[in-house]
Amino acid sequence: MVYITRKEYFCASHRLFNESFTDEKNLETFGKCSNPAGHGHNYELSVTVAGEPDPKTGMIIDLKKLSDLIKEEIINHVDHKNLNVDVDFLQGVIPTTENLARIFWKILNPKIKLGKLYSIQISETAKNFTEYRGE
Amino acid sequence: MVYITRKEYFCASHRLFNESFTDEKNLETFGKCSNPAGHGHNYELSVTVAGEPDPKTGMIIDLKKLSDLIKEEIINHVDHKNLNVDVDFLQGVIPTTENLARIFWKILNPKIKLGKLYSIQISETAKNFTEYRGE
Amino acid sequence: MVYITRKEYFCASHRLFNESFTDEKNLETFGKCSNPAGHGHNYELSVTVAGEPDPKTGMIIDLKKLSDLIKEEIINHVDHKNLNVDVDFLQGVIPTTENLARIFWKILNPKIKLGKLYSIQISETAKNFTEYRGE
Amino acid sequence: MVYITRKEYFCASHRLFNESFTDEKNLETFGKCSNPAGHGHNYELSVTVAGEPDPKTGMIIDLKKLSDLIKEEIINHVDHKNLNVDVDFLQGVIPTTENLARIFWKILNPKIKLGKLYSIQISETAKNFTEYRGE
Amino acid sequence: MVYITRKEYFCASHRLFNESFTDEKNLETFGKCSNPAGHGHNYELSVTVAGEPDPKTGMIIDLKKLSDLIKEEIINHVDHKNLNVDVDFLQGVIPTTENLARIFWKILNPKIKLGKLYSIQISETAKNFTEYRGE
Amino acid sequence: MVYITRKEYFCASHRLFNESFTDEKNLETFGKCSNPAGHGHNYELSVTVAGEPDPKTGMIIDLKKLSDLIKEEIINHVDHKNLNVDVDFLQGVIPTTENLARIFWKILNPKIKLGKLYSIQISETAKNFTEYRGE
Repeated sequence: MVYITRKEYFCASHRLFNESFTDEKNLETFGKCSNPAGHGHNYELSVTVAGEPDPKTGMIIDLKKLSDLIKEEIINHVDHKNLNVDVDFLQGVIPTTENLARIFWKILNPKIKLGKLYSIQISETAKNFTEYRGE
Repeated sequence: MVYITRKEYFCASHRLFNESFTDEKNLETFGKCSNPAGHGHNYELSVTVAGEPDPKTGMIIDLKKLSDLIKEEIINHVDHKNLNVDVDFLQGVIPTTENLARIFWKILNPKIKLGKLYSIQISETAKNFTEYRGE
Repeated sequence: MVYITRKEYFCASHRLFNESFTDEKNLETFGKCSNPAGHGHNYELSVTVAGEPDPKTGMIIDLKKLSDLIKEEIINHVDHKNLNVDVDFLQGVIPTTENLARIFWKILNPKIKLGKLYSIQISETAKNFTEYRGE
Repeated sequence: MVYITRKEYFCASHRLFNESFTDEKNLETFGKCSNPAGHGHNYELSVTVAGEPDPKTGMIIDLKKLSDLIKEEIINHVDHKNLNVDVDFLQGVIPTTENLARIFWKILNPKIKLGKLYSIQISETAKNFTEYRGE
Repeated sequence: MVYITRKEYFCASHRLFNESFTDEKNLETFGKCSNPAGHGHNYELSVTVAGEPDPKTGMIIDLKKLSDLIKEEIINHVDHKNLNVDVDFLQGVIPTTENLARIFWKILNPKIKLGKLYSIQISETAKNFTEYRGE
Repeated sequence: MVYITRKEYFCASHRLFNESFTDEKNLETFGKCSNPAGHGHNYELSVTVAGEPDPKTGMIIDLKKLSDLIKEEIINHVDHKNLNVDVDFLQGVIPTTENLARIFWKILNPKIKLGKLYSIQISETAKNFTEYRGE
C-alpha cells in the first residue's frame, strides 16, 4: 500500500455565518470571519489516494489524471468564486474547511477508480489546516 | 545604508472591475477576477525601510514598532475584509496589487520617522508579486 | 471525524546536555547541540484536534480559541526564552523536540474540551520534525 | 511512542517508460514524463522513525546519525544522477516516486536500529507527494 | 513606476559541460553537475515587468497574458525536457542559470509591449538563485 | 552583468542588549529580544555576487566554491553558537541582523575574486529580513 497525494490551489471568498443566528450571535461565533461583505483566502487542496502500484507502470494512478479530476470536479467550481454564492454543491453549507473537506470527499470518492481515496486536506492559511479521511 | 523588511499578512476578498465598463468589457479585461460575487486571497505585505543603524541599538527602526505601525495603518483595515466595500482608503479604487501598493505607500510614507520608506511589496498568490518604490 | 490543525511559532534558545554526563560524553551524545552557551531555533508548533463538526457552526473548535489556548499555555512561556533556564514546565527536562512534544501534550490535553487532542507536531528546522499522538 | 522525521534533498533526472511498451504506449501512459531525453526534479526525501525516547538523552535516535545514514545509503547514490542509468539499486525499476519509496524503505529498514522505520515520504514537485509505511 | 512579477515553474534535466574540455577538466570545473547522464531540477522562473498602471484597469499588464506569454515562449519549450538536447534556443549553450536568464531575456524582451521587461529570475534549487536585468 | 545568489543556513542564539544601558532601558529598547538568558533563531544567509559569466563555463563563480567560502568564513563560526559569546568577529557587537549583515560583508567582500559582492541578505524569522549592499 502506497499513498500518493496531488495538491491543487484555488482562490475564493467566503463568509462564515449561520442564517438562523442573529448578527450578534454570528459575530460572537465566527468573529472577523463573519464580516458581512466577506473575506477570502488562497486555499491549498491535497487529495491522497492509497493503492498498490501497477507493476507495469510503477504508478497507483496517473497524477495527471488525478489532477484533471480534481480540477474538473472541484477547482473549476470554486476557484475565483464566492463560496457562499457561486457554488452549486455548497448551497446552504457554512463554508468552513471542515465542511469543505467532507463535501469534496463525497464528490471525489466515487470518481477514484484506481486505488481508493484516503484523505482530503485543505489549508486556508499557513496556520490553519483540515484533514478528512472519510471516517 | 541598510534595508530592513517586515512582512505582515492579511486575508481579504475583492473583485476587479471598472464601474464604467460593461459586464462584457469587465470580463474581457479582468477575466475570472471580475466574478460579480468576488473571490479572495491570502496577501503578504512586506515593507522595507532604508536607513543607517543607530550605533547604540544596532537597529534602523524597532521591528516591533514597524510591525505595530503596519498593523494599525493597514492590516487592521483590510484583514478579513472585502477590499471593494469595507475599506475607507480604497473607495473608488480598483483593488489590483499595483493600486494597493501605491496607496499603502502614501499611507505609510509620512509615518516612517526612523529611516525612510524604500519599498512596498505585495504578493497575492505564490505566483503574483508587486513592488512599488515610490518612484 | 475531522482533523483540524492550528500552527503557531516561537523563537527560543536551548542547549542539549545531561547534567550527569561529563562534558566529553555530552559532546559525543549531542554534538554541536551541546554548545555550552547554547544556540537557538524558530520553532513551529502544530496542534491537531479531532472531532465531529458542530452542525450549527461547521466547526469542531473555534480556531481563534484554539490559537489563544496554545498561546496562553505554551507560546507565551517559551517564545523569546531560553528553554533550559526560563520555563517552569521544562525544569530538569532535556529540551529535545521529542520531550517538548510530550510535555506540550500533557499541558494541552486536559484543556481541549471540544473534540479531542490528536497530535502535537514540532519542527525545529526545515529538516527536523517531531510528532506525538499521546500513544 | 514518538515519531521523528529527517528531511534530505536530492536533484536527479529520470524518464518514466516501460521498455516493453511501444513509444506510443509509453507516451500515452506516462505523458510528458516519458520524454526520451529525460527531465528532472528537486526531490525531498523525508524519513520518519517511531520509538520511545531514551530518558538519558530525550532522543529516539540521533538526528545527525539518521541524516548520515540517509546520505550514505540513499542521497550519495541518487543526488545529481540520472535515476534510469546511474543507480545500482534502481536498475530495471521505473523511477516513479511510488517505486522509489518502496526501494528506499527496503534499503533503510534493516539499518534503523534505534526505534523502527515508520514512513518514507518523497516529494517530486510542490504538487506531487508519495508516502510508504511498509504495509 | 510599479514592478509586477509572474512566477512559473518547469522541471528539466541538464548536464553542465563544455564540449571542448576533457572529461577531467569538466569534472574539475562543474563537479557533480557534469555527471555524463545528467541530473535535474524543479526550476522557478520569475519575470518582472516595470511600468505605469493603466488608470482604467489598475494594471500594468494583464498577469494572465504575461503568464500565457511566458508559457508559450519559454515553459512549453523547457518543461519536462533535457535542456542540453531538446531545446532549439539552447543549442550549443551550457545550461547554467546565468545563461538561461540571459537567453530567456532575449526571447521575452521584444514580446513585452505593456511596460518593459525589468528582470528575469531563475531558482534552480532552494539555495541557488540567479537574476538578470538586461544590463 | 548577472547576479547570482547562494543561500546558507545557521541556527544560533542571541540577546539584544547594550551593556551601557540599564536593564529597564534594555527592556524598553529591545523588548522580549533582551531576555537575559537569550533566545534563538534559524537564520537564512543569502550572498549575491554580480559579474559577467565566463563564456567557457557559463558561470560567474562556481556556486560550490561560493558555498564553501560562506561556510568557512561565516557559517562554521556562527552555526549552533551563541552570537553574544562564542564568535570572535562579533565581540562587542549588538547582534541585530543590521549589524550581522555589515560584518559579514566586511569578511566576505575581500574574499570574492570572481565577480564582486553585491548584497548580503539575512532573514531571522519568516517576517524579518535585512539587506546590505555595501553602500
